[in-house]
Amino acid sequence: MLRFEVMILGNSSATPMYGRHPTSQVLNFNEQLYMIDCGEGTQMQLARYGIKSNRINHIFISHLHGDHYLGLVGLLSSQHLMGRKSTLHVYGPAALEEILAIQFKHSATVLQYPLVFHPTNPAEVEVILDTPAMKVTSFPLQHRIDCTGFRFDEGRRSATLNATLVDQLDIPTPYLKLLKRGIDYVDPDGTVYLASELTYPAPPSRSYAFCSDTLMNESYFETIQGVDLLYHESTFLHDMADRAKETLHSTGQEAAQVASTVGAKKLLLGHFSARYRDLQPFLDESQPFFANTLLSEEGKWFLV
Amino acid sequence: MLRFEVMILGNSSATPMYGRHPTSQVLNFNEQLYMIDCGEGTQMQLARYGIKSNRINHIFISHLHGDHYLGLVGLLSSQHLMGRKSTLHVYGPAALEEILAIQFKHSATVLQYPLVFHPTNPAEVEVILDTPAMKVTSFPLQHRIDCTGFRFDEGRRSATLNATLVDQLDIPTPYLKLLKRGIDYVDPDGTVYLASELTYPAPPSRSYAFCSDTLMNESYFETIQGVDLLYHESTFLHDMADRAKETLHSTGQEAAQVASTVGAKKLLLGHFSARYRDLQPFLDESQPFFANTLLSEEGKWFLV
Repeated sequence: MLRFEVMILGNSSATPMYGRHPTSQVLNFNEQLYMIDCGEGTQMQLARYGIKSNRINHIFISHLHGDHYLGLVGLLSSQHLMGRKSTLHVYGPAALEEILAIQFKHSATVLQYPLVFHPTNPAEVEVILDTPAMKVTSFPLQHRIDCTGFRFDEGRRSATLNATLVDQLDIPTPYLKLLKRGIDYVDPDGTVYLASELTYPAPPSRSYAFCSDTLMNESYFETIQGVDLLYHESTFLHDMADRAKETLHSTGQEAAQVASTVGAKKLLLGHFSARYRDLQPFLDESQPFFANTLLSEEGKWFLV
Repeated sequence: MLRFEVMILGNSSATPMYGRHPTSQVLNFNEQLYMIDCGEGTQMQLARYGIKSNRINHIFISHLHGDHYLGLVGLLSSQHLMGRKSTLHVYGPAALEEILAIQFKHSATVLQYPLVFHPTNPAEVEVILDTPAMKVTSFPLQHRIDCTGFRFDEGRRSATLNATLVDQLDIPTPYLKLLKRGIDYVDPDGTVYLASELTYPAPPSRSYAFCSDTLMNESYFETIQGVDLLYHESTFLHDMADRAKETLHSTGQEAAQVASTVGAKKLLLGHFSARYRDLQPFLDESQPFFANTLLSEEGKWFLV
């Protein structure tokens, strides 16, 4: 099975405390790396956890609060200094392009690699990347400024061979791949071997959704329906639900209610406020509403 | 003697490696904190070393290469979120004001404390802060973009009492302070006690100079003449003197030559290139030219 995992580089909300870092994540799908948000210090976090930043070709920025993007100029500049040549795609709010441009202008930086900026739409659900391997959809969240979440859907997966049956036959190796793609094999004598009989059907494609920052609000539930892994912000514990509402954030309990409502398989909590040193109470309040809840831990890979 | 020390928060040049961080320093003069440069991750470094960022009232930015200022927006925003009320002064290239403004605008941040921006002059030596405690002078360095160094001069120091003599007399306590400031004491009988006889003269005021980033170039030597502690960048070892010249940086040996020429008492090297994991060779090549050379180490206080 192809690798599909997310590493949390930062699980802190705006004020980084207790050694926690502002938001950034790296999604590894079959050794293709996608970055989601890029808070201050992300390039140092990448180095710390041994992730080569030149392997990242797509960066998705949810919104323009500093704790979600202030590491981007440093990361892009370091890629330049380290001799990157391959294209880097950045997806984010339209104003981000201006913020990057003014900083590159005043540092007299002319990037030595192509940087392609894709403005996201804060008002509509949009497919922003569509390759055979991965489809990425942005969708509006409800925050104090324009903010989008991102859903990642693995491309269509292959069927797997029924090894017991296949081993009894004399099918040339190149045709095995075709069988997995559903193409029947016809041998030189004209005998037909049906792909549908020699393979197990492809498992459903896996999916990951990133929701930060947002008020819990059903407007985005449809888009994240049925994801395998849901990352949902939980800035506050539920005894501060009023404060969460005021600041357009969510609580641990609310995140669990979202996961349950949309039929997610697993929930990953993050974006914890600086007021909480101990994070265990987030699990305690969430698991009664959604048992399969995990706390995001920096530097750890979570299976999608 | 009043405390006068500098902590190095980052000793790395542009690409942070080996756990080193981009440039930032905190100068502590008598528990007043002054920050010099503010590379990415500075607010996390402050937390790591237990320095309360709300005690910093003056921040000096040398130039607009990312490794010298990308932590500023995060630091200013966190101060806002943590409820700072006192005025914060930022000194730096004029364009920095625009860079801050556009980011506060798009994050819809209205700072809850007064931020006063003071543009530095990249072409002339200028006194930019002048209080009884501290005078700060900016001066042009020679880099690829406008860049200034900063010199910090402690205000006039007090004389110290000659305790042996004073203890034999019956001078009321409040007058002891005046003696130290050079004011003679006249007792009720009209006897005059000369301050000049009862005190040792004030020691000379101490000074610190920060030179990063720059080509070694005598244009700035006069301004940093005779400082007690000179921080001078040494991006490269001297076998790469050509590369240093090309990129308008200095070598360890050159920094030592500067320290020797200007009559500094101590030299602190920093801004090390990512190509050097081991920093000992910087000391080795510098000390023959200036014996009192130190390597900047992150998290350590250096006496001015």
